[in-house]
Amino acid sequence: MKGFAMLKIGEVGWVEKEVPKCGPLDAICRPIALAPCTSDIHTVYEGAVGERTDMILGHEAVGEIMEVGELVKDFKVGDKVLVPAITPDWGSLEAQRGFAQHSGGTLGGWKFSNFKDGVFAERFHVNEADANLALLPEGMDPADATMLSDMVPTGFHGCELAEVTYGEDVLVIGIGPVGLMAVAGAALRGAARILAVGTRPNCVALAKEYGATDIISYKDGPIDEQVMKLTGGKGVDKVIIAGGDNDTFAEAVKVTKPGGIIANINYLGSGDYIKIPREAWGVGMGHIRIVGGLMPAGRMRTERLANMMMNGRLDVSGMLTHKFEGLESLPEALQLMKDKPSDLIKPVITISYED
Amino acid sequence: MKGFAMLKIGEVGWVEKEVPKCGPLDAICRPIALAPCTSDIHTVYEGAVGERTDMILGHEAVGEIMEVGELVKDFKVGDKVLVPAITPDWGSLEAQRGFAQHSGGTLGGWKFSNFKDGVFAERFHVNEADANLALLPEGMDPADATMLSDMVPTGFHGCELAEVTYGEDVLVIGIGPVGLMAVAGAALRGAARILAVGTRPNCVALAKEYGATDIISYKDGPIDEQVMKLTGGKGVDKVIIAGGDNDTFAEAVKVTKPGGIIANINYLGSGDYIKIPREAWGVGMGHIRIVGGLMPAGRMRTERLANMMMNGRLDVSGMLTHKFEGLESLPEALQLMKDKPSDLIKPVITISYED
Amino acid sequence: MKGFAMLKIGEVGWVEKEVPKCGPLDAICRPIALAPCTSDIHTVYEGAVGERTDMILGHEAVGEIMEVGELVKDFKVGDKVLVPAITPDWGSLEAQRGFAQHSGGTLGGWKFSNFKDGVFAERFHVNEADANLALLPEGMDPADATMLSDMVPTGFHGCELAEVTYGEDVLVIGIGPVGLMAVAGAALRGAARILAVGTRPNCVALAKEYGATDIISYKDGPIDEQVMKLTGGKGVDKVIIAGGDNDTFAEAVKVTKPGGIIANINYLGSGDYIKIPREAWGVGMGHIRIVGGLMPAGRMRTERLANMMMNGRLDVSGMLTHKFEGLESLPEALQLMKDKPSDLIKPVITISYED
Amino acid sequence: MKGFAMLKIGEVGWVEKEVPKCGPLDAICRPIALAPCTSDIHTVYEGAVGERTDMILGHEAVGEIMEVGELVKDFKVGDKVLVPAITPDWGSLEAQRGFAQHSGGTLGGWKFSNFKDGVFAERFHVNEADANLALLPEGMDPADATMLSDMVPTGFHGCELAEVTYGEDVLVIGIGPVGLMAVAGAALRGAARILAVGTRPNCVALAKEYGATDIISYKDGPIDEQVMKLTGGKGVDKVIIAGGDNDTFAEAVKVTKPGGIIANINYLGSGDYIKIPREAWGVGMGHIRIVGGLMPAGRMRTERLANMMMNGRLDVSGMLTHKFEGLESLPEALQLMKDKPSDLIKPVITISYED
Repeated sequence: MKGFAMLKIGEVGWVEKEVPKCGPLDAICRPIALAPCTSDIHTVYEGAVGERTDMILGHEAVGEIMEVGELVKDFKVGDKVLVPAITPDWGSLEAQRGFAQHSGGTLGGWKFSNFKDGVFAERFHVNEADANLALLPEGMDPADATMLSDMVPTGFHGCELAEVTYGEDVLVIGIGPVGLMAVAGAALRGAARILAVGTRPNCVALAKEYGATDIISYKDGPIDEQVMKLTGGKGVDKVIIAGGDNDTFAEAVKVTKPGGIIANINYLGSGDYIKIPREAWGVGMGHIRIVGGLMPAGRMRTERLANMMMNGRLDVSGMLTHKFEGLESLPEALQLMKDKPSDLIKPVITISYED
Repeated sequence: MKGFAMLKIGEVGWVEKEVPKCGPLDAICRPIALAPCTSDIHTVYEGAVGERTDMILGHEAVGEIMEVGELVKDFKVGDKVLVPAITPDWGSLEAQRGFAQHSGGTLGGWKFSNFKDGVFAERFHVNEADANLALLPEGMDPADATMLSDMVPTGFHGCELAEVTYGEDVLVIGIGPVGLMAVAGAALRGAARILAVGTRPNCVALAKEYGATDIISYKDGPIDEQVMKLTGGKGVDKVIIAGGDNDTFAEAVKVTKPGGIIANINYLGSGDYIKIPREAWGVGMGHIRIVGGLMPAGRMRTERLANMMMNGRLDVSGMLTHKFEGLESLPEALQLMKDKPSDLIKPVITISYED
Repeated sequence: MKGFAMLKIGEVGWVEKEVPKCGPLDAICRPIALAPCTSDIHTVYEGAVGERTDMILGHEAVGEIMEVGELVKDFKVGDKVLVPAITPDWGSLEAQRGFAQHSGGTLGGWKFSNFKDGVFAERFHVNEADANLALLPEGMDPADATMLSDMVPTGFHGCELAEVTYGEDVLVIGIGPVGLMAVAGAALRGAARILAVGTRPNCVALAKEYGATDIISYKDGPIDEQVMKLTGGKGVDKVIIAGGDNDTFAEAVKVTKPGGIIANINYLGSGDYIKIPREAWGVGMGHIRIVGGLMPAGRMRTERLANMMMNGRLDVSGMLTHKFEGLESLPEALQLMKDKPSDLIKPVITISYED
Repeated sequence: MKGFAMLKIGEVGWVEKEVPKCGPLDAICRPIALAPCTSDIHTVYEGAVGERTDMILGHEAVGEIMEVGELVKDFKVGDKVLVPAITPDWGSLEAQRGFAQHSGGTLGGWKFSNFKDGVFAERFHVNEADANLALLPEGMDPADATMLSDMVPTGFHGCELAEVTYGEDVLVIGIGPVGLMAVAGAALRGAARILAVGTRPNCVALAKEYGATDIISYKDGPIDEQVMKLTGGKGVDKVIIAGGDNDTFAEAVKVTKPGGIIANINYLGSGDYIKIPREAWGVGMGHIRIVGGLMPAGRMRTERLANMMMNGRLDVSGMLTHKFEGLESLPEALQLMKDKPSDLIKPVITISYED
């Protein structure tokens, strides 16, 4: 089979590989919609997960099942399925502790284009199919549905980590696709005021549509100063970090009320340390909680998020700014994520089959 | 001063009383908007809180401060304020345990028209003004603002007790004004499907506007049978009871998944027992949690809910079906709550002053 | 193989069956220690789970692995293992919702001597061995270890459901082996005063050893009256129900403070309804939470509880009042659970093999 | 009245001041037992809270009420009372958000020897007496009772922040009096293995008595390396930081499992930043929560902790290594805290009165 791969750090290309084997609990799928992710860029061009050779990229997909293992009970060949980016081992100790995404060790549930080949191929492998897949709901556009692999669950998880609740003031730093979903997710957990940090016009417009009430540009000065001014010196209840870098945390701490939470959903790709300012952190006693986490996954989670879309709570279509047809457009779509033209939010590829 | 009172069980009328005294932490207000509540009807005509003589009714109000105690720091004469129905003692042991609404004992934070005169008067008394009042936000319609006294916080509390979260299926039983706010509150905590039980056309229409996806009429058979049919036998994650009676709980238990929550926000006015069906409750081991609670109150809570309205998350105006002018219209407005004409959701009275 | 079975309701006896088959994720064990449970008595003599024919009884065991499936990674033949009474399907939707014990439906994780043959046999079958078994720690007495199958996790779960915390006053109703573990578990979550309801002298003595500060006998009058007297009219923060019947809940509600929790871990074997007294329940608004649940299981949980024993936090040996040797003593041991002589807390059987 | 004060940074001495005034909600007490705290040393000799002139020191006390305000309902002159180090404003927005200790702003509930005179005087002032004091239980030794002001609630709060639960492995860094109480508190929340970092022999002995299972000395190499070795490379579920400095956090992150919590209760007195190692923190996605907080206080909390002591759950007497008599021994006792002789854990002063 053909797959679009990271040949080595800094280089991508098509590779030819064996179709993956289907274990008793697994499924083999072919893609019907795919989306490249900024993480793919980090992986290839920054070596974020380390050196890899001929590793097929991609972790955002909607698929069609071509083969299932003999212990799979709830899915069959021909089913169209939502495929989460993270596919945990559900019997692991970490899953039993409530952190399936870290099954087998930190980030261990992240297998696609990390520990095994990703979804940018004619066929891809899904472990524990019954637990990790969900049916594509009747009537859901497969292109939209790709956003359920990573963008929606990651953005929403920021709001869960931040425990956003009715009437809170929330700062969302970064309004790329994940940050936009954090904005939407904050509104869908009852936030009152949502301050969003970003500059690109279509992202800003979409952030407002998803519920942002104030837009902050880092070009207008330090974020913390702007937030304190906008809130009359009170700061915010919660901060969700969906962009920036290690230094973003210091700004976040400075605007968080005692008892507030800073939730990171941004992959921190470089640098040795995140630095927490001692005084703003209440000399260690201000009850400002700092946490960051990989998206939770699984069939139940994915079904729930899909149900939100099907019941009209969330419309992701505005994020899909660039649409492609056919597996062969993968290089072009990925290149877009690298170049980040000003009108890009998210590219998506749909693939049709004659059979 | 003049007040509209419960003279005794079954009888209402105007009374003349002394203006209440203002303690060091207190405020004395005059009403600028008032709303009668079904509880007022329970209190007068069903003797729900027991016999009372010449007790001024009412607990939903927006006021203007006429006098403040010498220890009040954050409010001054002339301030227009949101007045929660529940006004706890914030230093109490119960408040320190997280249940301020039960300060001094079960339901102890419910003082208006229960342990002391209510707000249907030329003047009313608010204890611990700094902790219990919130400024009426600039630009908020006082009629709308009365919904922040009880309807919004009670309906939303149902969703808090039920711990509604992203993508859950939620059943709301009863879509009077509190149930409607439970529907809105469920959508604002990320529910996917919201099944609402009710029949009155304008309530049904508004329930849909607030996010209900399915409407169930008790006239079409037992609620539990309809819910199981609509959900393909799966039942719901959470149930919020905002109407019905003691028998409603049995129907709720039958449709709740293991691990689900049944949250009651309905005042249960009569009968000796709520009956939980043993088998449907998993022979005591199904992890179906049953809880009911009085709305939380306080300045922070009220400010947060007001901020939601000011930031466009919630529009209560559709609930205000009957509007009156002047304190003297109180008897007519209260009578409406008793008669419940089919087009009534909530009556509200605004009062203007020449000074 | 030979197994000790429920032949039909009301009748037990030895049966001869095929050794169960080992699926790819499973293990087949032989018992090295077994304990009968009151539930076995309910099952046989009260038909609590319905009619069954020749179903092997038992769900409390320590085993030795005789065979493992080809997908089992962490266990091998010869390993001595702790076997929880509940063995969930870890990929199920319910497990992903946090309620693995209800995998596949209410109580669905309870398989032994319910949906399949139990552990009172020469061989028994364990599903998802990697996720459901835990190694018997070096140096742990197998007889003691049987208490980790059900008694410890069930009793402790009462304290988890009740969210017992530092300095609370807790009432434990029933001090059979599960109630005793609830007493121990409450002390190990920081309870201050623990009031325990029971009468049998050796249970009372052991309850005190595990941390009970006050003993109440139902023979001295209604429990609620005694509790209110002992607490100076204040009642308790939490109640754990580990005995009694459907009517016990009414007494529990009457002594629970607003905001308190009533946690049931008692199998409710008969009757149609649990009755919650409306007024004592704060007319539905007193924030008294009522919940009951089957013990959580799994390897992580079992390892954690075993670690508590290995680190000296808990000594279960005092509960093992009657010790037997050999599989053939099962009938006698089970009969003890039926007869409940006054000096019985828990019988246990150890089995040695020559190979 | 006479008080022992910080005259300026680096200098202590007796001062003569007016007896503080008693507001309507307040109480004026005289001390019957006092204990100096390491924070007093930080305050005086490191200028931790900034420059202060003639500010009376001390925040750990048991007192006798000499005067009460007219709105105080539950206490009267002559009552002997437990006095928490932190005395919040209970009506504040922060208290209503669940963080009373930060009433009015970060650390705002810390008033004694910070914003106002402390307890090392012939008389001291307590705000909101009904909410902030608790009766000294009949039979509790006043010397022991001083540990309820700060040492017990702070140490236990570390365990609350870390959400220690049954069977977890917990690392406690620092076993001064606060760390010792964290060890005891971890055992009282059901920890299995408790690894404690410290070197002083009497602290080590007491840590073992309170439940530590492994003792680690920083002299034997980096803490993280020792912990990983002791746990077979698994690390711990939770870390409580009760000593060390800003660099301690990096070691803590390195030993915490994904999903674990690092809870700081150590006053971080200097340095600009706490540094979180990016990779060990799961590149921002490892769900390792970092939080630190000031002890919660209040009458309910204090009564609960006192009840634990009265019911035999906790014995603090072993910490009181140096006992003094009379207010005049304050300089000597405080000097001990500065010199930290190897046999010191905690000094305490009792004061008797002839009337």
